[in-house]
Amino acid sequence: MTDVVSTELEVRWGECDPAGIVYHPAYIDWFSVARMHLLSAHGVSYMTAFHNNGVVLVVLEVNCRYHRSLRAEDKVQIDCSVEMLSRTRMSLKYEVYDANDILCAAGRTEHAFTDLQNRAINLAKHSPELWKLLQKIAPAVSLEV
Amino acid sequence: MTDVVSTELEVRWGECDPAGIVYHPAYIDWFSVARMHLLSAHGVSYMTAFHNNGVVLVVLEVNCRYHRSLRAEDKVQIDCSVEMLSRTRMSLKYEVYDANDILCAAGRTEHAFTDLQNRAINLAKHSPELWKLLQKIAPAVSLEV
Amino acid sequence: MTDVVSTELEVRWGECDPAGIVYHPAYIDWFSVARMHLLSAHGVSYMTAFHNNGVVLVVLEVNCRYHRSLRAEDKVQIDCSVEMLSRTRMSLKYEVYDANDILCAAGRTEHAFTDLQNRAINLAKHSPELWKLLQKIAPAVSLEV
Amino acid sequence: MTDVVSTELEVRWGECDPAGIVYHPAYIDWFSVARMHLLSAHGVSYMTAFHNNGVVLVVLEVNCRYHRSLRAEDKVQIDCSVEMLSRTRMSLKYEVYDANDILCAAGRTEHAFTDLQNRAINLAKHSPELWKLLQKIAPAVSLEV
Repeated sequence: MTDVVSTELEVRWGECDPAGIVYHPAYIDWFSVARMHLLSAHGVSYMTAFHNNGVVLVVLEVNCRYHRSLRAEDKVQIDCSVEMLSRTRMSLKYEVYDANDILCAAGRTEHAFTDLQNRAINLAKHSPELWKLLQKIAPAVSLEV
Repeated sequence: MTDVVSTELEVRWGECDPAGIVYHPAYIDWFSVARMHLLSAHGVSYMTAFHNNGVVLVVLEVNCRYHRSLRAEDKVQIDCSVEMLSRTRMSLKYEVYDANDILCAAGRTEHAFTDLQNRAINLAKHSPELWKLLQKIAPAVSLEV
Repeated sequence: MTDVVSTELEVRWGECDPAGIVYHPAYIDWFSVARMHLLSAHGVSYMTAFHNNGVVLVVLEVNCRYHRSLRAEDKVQIDCSVEMLSRTRMSLKYEVYDANDILCAAGRTEHAFTDLQNRAINLAKHSPELWKLLQKIAPAVSLEV
Repeated sequence: MTDVVSTELEVRWGECDPAGIVYHPAYIDWFSVARMHLLSAHGVSYMTAFHNNGVVLVVLEVNCRYHRSLRAEDKVQIDCSVEMLSRTRMSLKYEVYDANDILCAAGRTEHAFTDLQNRAINLAKHSPELWKLLQKIAPAVSLEV
């Protein structure tokens, strides 16, 4: 597994629901923010290296377990790391901590590399340079070609 | 002004904030829903006639005045009509009513027609068929060519 | 497992991302919509029976597996059913179908009953009438008291 | 008018729409973030001083004019200042700049002070301490008592 990249956020009023706590899908949105920060921390801009390059990191599965609720103005830290990387897939893990370093939620996303027509691609063939960059982030585990 | 097209929605839990009422930007999202329904009620699919056709109905200005708050599970009706249509611009009006027909909010959006590179276009030249369809929805008022 | 309650939605423009497809956390929001419809289809208003009654159906875990992407204006049907019900917990399952009845996503949420101070409650003791109503929706499986 | 308080954000993937640009209601959400930062920069926590104190800064009107579109990963700065403050109302102005200091959007929100039952309140009577704090942020202009 890769080194962890941390992203700090402050809970927005609009991310909370009538129960006064963060509406649970907001954590999944935070995972996207943390994932893009993990990439950019390693010199990979998602917009440049993926989106404008015709590569979509499409989500196959998302999971989140909620341990402790958060409220507006709370400061949170999201730790993100790559769990698995292959030429066709990538999965990441996320941990959400509050200001007291208490674990509030933990999750995982699983992705496939596709083109803009939603067809699965072999990243090493489609975008060798991006594939090299990603390999530097995480040791490649070739599951399928 | 055109005939009004009404869209019915039920307020979602996730559209409400810790004050227990609909978070105010959600109304602006509802305006988008109502605008697309107004178009589709006249046989114009936004995705087909605009998006896939390379035309963006970009928003230049939005205004909303809030009269009465709404809560999750409330049923709302959004009345939408075209206020102005020209070859380069379009503006629409919106009124949000609750189940008792009480006006809860009223707003307006102003749009320009642009291409995917965000350049202003003359719709009559760029997409004459779409321009004809829109003219049937609202009497054209040529402000600029 | 209970009978399935279906909810029909039309994908909103604002629910889609720059890849042109529904942004994946939106499905988790749809699960909330479908869950509240399942309850209301059985005569239980979440706002009246839960929220105003001081009971929170807090989310402990959410999972979603994405099979096929959806786009703005697509019509979707979300089938929701109760998977498990006890005095302290409840879990539900969801399946998202497109207009051609093709499964686009499937997920699950797990919940605990808590009070407004986020303390776990035994629903049968805290709100016997609500507990009776929920038992009619799903056969009770008492896991813990 | 008060001094300006600046808030820096990075555009999130999920804030953008299929046209590839920030979905216009997201700016209204950013205004909320900027408003709460303006308050906290002056030592007023919205959650503590307003929400937990039973005071709602309800939105009466919102306006936004869009000058230039923004994309995911763009860094933005939102300048916020108090335009008007009275015992019953408050209005604020917002300017959104991109990384090149180009104005991308400008808006305004108008608010009333209400209690949790949505009744208008005179803040000087309801919460004299909060009223004093707000007066330090902006010179009071008593419009109505």
